[in-house]
Amino acid sequence: MLSRRSPSSRVEPQSKTVGERRMKCVSCREEYGAHDAGTCKECYEEASETEEELKQEIDDLKAKVAFLRFDNHHHKPSFTDVVLVASDDSSTSVPVSVPAHKAVLMSRSPVFKAMLETEMEGSRSGTIKISGMSYDALRAFVNYLYTAEAGLDEQTAYDIFVLAEKYQVKHLKAYCEKFLVSKLNWDNSVRSYAFAQQHNAKLVLDAALSMITDDMVKLTKREEYVELVEKDPRLVVKIYEAYLAKQFNTAAHMDSSSKSVG
Amino acid sequence: MLSRRSPSSRVEPQSKTVGERRMKCVSCREEYGAHDAGTCKECYEEASETEEELKQEIDDLKAKVAFLRFDNHHHKPSFTDVVLVASDDSSTSVPVSVPAHKAVLMSRSPVFKAMLETEMEGSRSGTIKISGMSYDALRAFVNYLYTAEAGLDEQTAYDIFVLAEKYQVKHLKAYCEKFLVSKLNWDNSVRSYAFAQQHNAKLVLDAALSMITDDMVKLTKREEYVELVEKDPRLVVKIYEAYLAKQFNTAAHMDSSSKSVG
Repeated sequence: MLSRRSPSSRVEPQSKTVGERRMKCVSCREEYGAHDAGTCKECYEEASETEEELKQEIDDLKAKVAFLRFDNHHHKPSFTDVVLVASDDSSTSVPVSVPAHKAVLMSRSPVFKAMLETEMEGSRSGTIKISGMSYDALRAFVNYLYTAEAGLDEQTAYDIFVLAEKYQVKHLKAYCEKFLVSKLNWDNSVRSYAFAQQHNAKLVLDAALSMITDDMVKLTKREEYVELVEKDPRLVVKIYEAYLAKQFNTAAHMDSSSKSVG
Repeated sequence: MLSRRSPSSRVEPQSKTVGERRMKCVSCREEYGAHDAGTCKECYEEASETEEELKQEIDDLKAKVAFLRFDNHHHKPSFTDVVLVASDDSSTSVPVSVPAHKAVLMSRSPVFKAMLETEMEGSRSGTIKISGMSYDALRAFVNYLYTAEAGLDEQTAYDIFVLAEKYQVKHLKAYCEKFLVSKLNWDNSVRSYAFAQQHNAKLVLDAALSMITDDMVKLTKREEYVELVEKDPRLVVKIYEAYLAKQFNTAAHMDSSSKSVG
């Protein structure tokens, strides 16, 4: 069935034509006049059927995902034949390892595939070293390869995006980008922007730039801005270029609107 | 957007009330009167949004399935650590083997999981023998475990269902059942029924019984019927019981209908 609004959400029409025939909406069950008419009955029925079919397809796909996912891997990996070793750059930390299956790594990442196929011909090393990465990030990364799911926080999303980019796991890149865009706010916008530029995260880049250029007045007072000017001034230039382009676009749009009005 | 019918599919109303205000359906763009009214505009817009959201969810899930699937396995399995050996019962056939990964088998089937976990503790045999099964069926079965897809014909669907039942691969059982129901016809209905009884395929059983009991007159003249009476008369008894139950239900329904009319 189509979704039904609660009757109270209905806005009553301002004026009723006297004698106009009122109809009852088959979805929300409220009365409406001809000026508020939506679909005919036949189209409503077809749309309801379509919705049912789409929901059925969603259920089928969810079952497929559940079937293809390795649920148990995280807790109790069996018959693993490779170990991923994380070592972040701090010299104090002890390298830690995440066991995995070569077949899974190859299926999910063309980089692992090439790496392991080459290895097949030569020596059969059972270790893949991944430097500059925390254990938590690596574990979340490997877990995603098995389950297509990850419990992300912002830092993990940044870290995993870097891994996903390095190993060309497109699906995970998109997943992280969506998450980072959803977490975007004024406070993290400059950091997100700098990250997105560095790692070619197009969705995050557009969203962060749009947020920053919406409020340029405050920009120059921000600590992160001062840091970025120091560290990578070209990225700051690109912010100004985007701002300028936005201003021109807005101006051009207003100009053409006023012309069409005149 | 909601699906649109072609204008020609529209049935013109038999009589038009003179002076009644006609409305245009926002979906099919045809005119209709108050008696053919479907939704109000607000509900139409909400339904369109819902449909867009459902379609987006379907796209996301499809991408997830594509990510979790092992596409390359069929052509070029790498780093396999177990071999499934099929041998059908004909003594002339040479046993053939399908390579696989223990981790995948364990993830998809609780039976393989128990089998391989027990094995882990003891000897590490690399072979699982599956008797009474053709190579094609076994290959299709293993392929499904990697991809959640199978190119089925009727015989393969029967064979794979048996494997799916034996190894408790629920998702594949459901897949085969849907396929077999879609292929059900008068000619294969008795065979399907007997198979469904033997292997507890509820969907196929109901569909086949319904088809058989719809045309009982021809039943006794069928070769498969005669064979079934010979081979497993209890299954034939169940057909008659189902027929009887159907007759009583229909009679009871007609009786209550006529009472409510009277």
